[in-house]
Amino acid sequence: MGGVKKIAILGSTGSIGRQALDIIRALPDQLTVVALTGNKNLKLLEEQIKEFRPKMFCSSIKPDIDCGGQFLSVEEIAGHPGVDFVIMATVGKAGLNPTLAALQAGKTVALASKEVLVMAGQIIVREASIHHAQILPIDSEHSAIWQCLQGEETKPRRLFLTASGGPFYRYSDAQLAEVAPEQALRHPVWKMGKKVTIDSATLMNKGLEVIEAHWLFSFAFDSIEILVHPQSIVHSMVEFMDGSLKAQLSWPDMRLPIQYALSYPRRWPNPELPRLDWNKVNSLNFEPVDYDRFPCLKLAVEAGKSGGTCPAALCAADEVAVELFLSHRIRFTDIAKIVQRTLERHRNVSRPSLEDVLAADNWAREYATHLSLGQSRKRERRGNPAIKR
Amino acid sequence: MGGVKKIAILGSTGSIGRQALDIIRALPDQLTVVALTGNKNLKLLEEQIKEFRPKMFCSSIKPDIDCGGQFLSVEEIAGHPGVDFVIMATVGKAGLNPTLAALQAGKTVALASKEVLVMAGQIIVREASIHHAQILPIDSEHSAIWQCLQGEETKPRRLFLTASGGPFYRYSDAQLAEVAPEQALRHPVWKMGKKVTIDSATLMNKGLEVIEAHWLFSFAFDSIEILVHPQSIVHSMVEFMDGSLKAQLSWPDMRLPIQYALSYPRRWPNPELPRLDWNKVNSLNFEPVDYDRFPCLKLAVEAGKSGGTCPAALCAADEVAVELFLSHRIRFTDIAKIVQRTLERHRNVSRPSLEDVLAADNWAREYATHLSLGQSRKRERRGNPAIKR
Repeated sequence: MGGVKKIAILGSTGSIGRQALDIIRALPDQLTVVALTGNKNLKLLEEQIKEFRPKMFCSSIKPDIDCGGQFLSVEEIAGHPGVDFVIMATVGKAGLNPTLAALQAGKTVALASKEVLVMAGQIIVREASIHHAQILPIDSEHSAIWQCLQGEETKPRRLFLTASGGPFYRYSDAQLAEVAPEQALRHPVWKMGKKVTIDSATLMNKGLEVIEAHWLFSFAFDSIEILVHPQSIVHSMVEFMDGSLKAQLSWPDMRLPIQYALSYPRRWPNPELPRLDWNKVNSLNFEPVDYDRFPCLKLAVEAGKSGGTCPAALCAADEVAVELFLSHRIRFTDIAKIVQRTLERHRNVSRPSLEDVLAADNWAREYATHLSLGQSRKRERRGNPAIKR
Repeated sequence: MGGVKKIAILGSTGSIGRQALDIIRALPDQLTVVALTGNKNLKLLEEQIKEFRPKMFCSSIKPDIDCGGQFLSVEEIAGHPGVDFVIMATVGKAGLNPTLAALQAGKTVALASKEVLVMAGQIIVREASIHHAQILPIDSEHSAIWQCLQGEETKPRRLFLTASGGPFYRYSDAQLAEVAPEQALRHPVWKMGKKVTIDSATLMNKGLEVIEAHWLFSFAFDSIEILVHPQSIVHSMVEFMDGSLKAQLSWPDMRLPIQYALSYPRRWPNPELPRLDWNKVNSLNFEPVDYDRFPCLKLAVEAGKSGGTCPAALCAADEVAVELFLSHRIRFTDIAKIVQRTLERHRNVSRPSLEDVLAADNWAREYATHLSLGQSRKRERRGNPAIKR
């Protein structure tokens, strides 16, 4: 099947990057690493470079090792002729330019970086289409939908994204206001980075996934629904025109959707991947999500529907707010308030260029910081960390 | 898409036949009836003929109506050039010859009649392959597996057939011995004919489905597993090589798999088909089946593994035993005993012709009747309806 796939992992020191390397390590006949890029975790990047000996690499500081590879920019790597397949696993807007570079060079891009599609979905999808480049999902939910769509000729009726509900789904408003960062970082199912873990607890993450699903599968927002499913075994579902549904199930393990993107359209046996054991999984529970209890989810879906630069502003404000929450400067429930106020003041550009998207990101970051600084000062004066709506 | 599909329904007065007519009635732009066949329910057949005015029809007694159609044999209809698509919905071995006639004429055959593949799987699959004819499943479980296999290039690792478990799954052996036909006929989920309902209660039905799945999807018996799933929402699942599973879900309604066979590879909206409501379905439960509690299931899988004429003998003995149970002449738990004793005495023909299959059927019917007659006499003498092992 065309020999060994040459993989570039952009963001190889993060959670998804490391798990992608686990897959490549287990499948040396099918996959090889040709490029690795990291950011600040130089020590881990150097170890990875020593192990995989990539032809190209990049990081914020040039590593001081002799592995025979070339030090290039992330964009140069993303579009390099020696690369077949790009895994986009960077965090935040850093993924935008490399993704565009990869798509413009006609590469297949497996997207783990949520922000790329959320911030610039319109631009990304258009570039992929112009250059006949494929975008494959790596998120477990979108991989599930993508798997369920295989072989189906008729457009489905609805997509159901499942959500674990996060650790606080049954909390009262009063309890939510008291949540500490340490509690929020203990996600019941998935092991992920800090930002994503907090976004899972606020359900902002699920909202961003709705926007992603909209762009990946060209689905109207009203046809994308969310089901709370605490066990995280069913990773999402598709409802077809005849009332039949397909669901994709597995043990929650990110290596599976990563491998599926790499093996697609085939599937490869990999003894290191866990198998579902029906002696251990007895019950799968589902309930439609309660939008009113988790304002971040509602804000995200509304930003998605507004389109233009709104999702970019949403992402930026959320990033600022989560950072402030993690450093104990605002309450858990203030995250939604900061995002909401920022969106209320945002001037949407409906058909944005990449510059418009980045300007919206900049503006929202500054505005959210300014909002929260005011709040911090108030908090110091009054001893009350809550932001009033 | 090639215009209106011309459908022959063989067994149109039975449960599946009537539901197939519901689908055709709802989708007049895609489907048209060209042939109907019934057996003893002449009154209903005449009504159907008046409504659908088929070009051909057949029944055990020639109906006395003037509808302009031709009275032909079931085999003539099955292979007729005016037919595109044959729905095989007859009960028992009556489906064998018409199915072969349809396949030999290169027709697409949608199989609802379990016995066809169970009794003569080897012959049926060979004829379909020689004549490039397609066999499509209509059973909800096999339709589910077939739907999950769409677009998958790599052979899966395992199939999971789901089973409601029937009404007596938690009964003790003593309770099972006392089950009356009236109780067994109340199936908790599906509305079906009497024979299938009793087979569901003994789990014989699930065993026959394992044999069917073996032939339909060329799967080894050891790779076909059974999960008890009381809600009957997940109709079956497929586990792939990478540990990912796909499941097909829907409200339990046979019209859905019937329509899927008719619409395949597309899907058609049909407002009469029920949609799953996640406000009503909160919990889906699963557990591996307990083979030891339901000897009919074990007997069926063993007969499937033995192959040859064993499954035909199994079917025939089961038909006799179920009939005896329905007429209050043996106990519920005697069904398995009659089947087991018949199989113990059966001389297997490993690569059978159709004549061998029919001879095995005949022999097993006589032997099972003989066994049960002995039992009935003993029962009259002793007042004890149980057959001892």
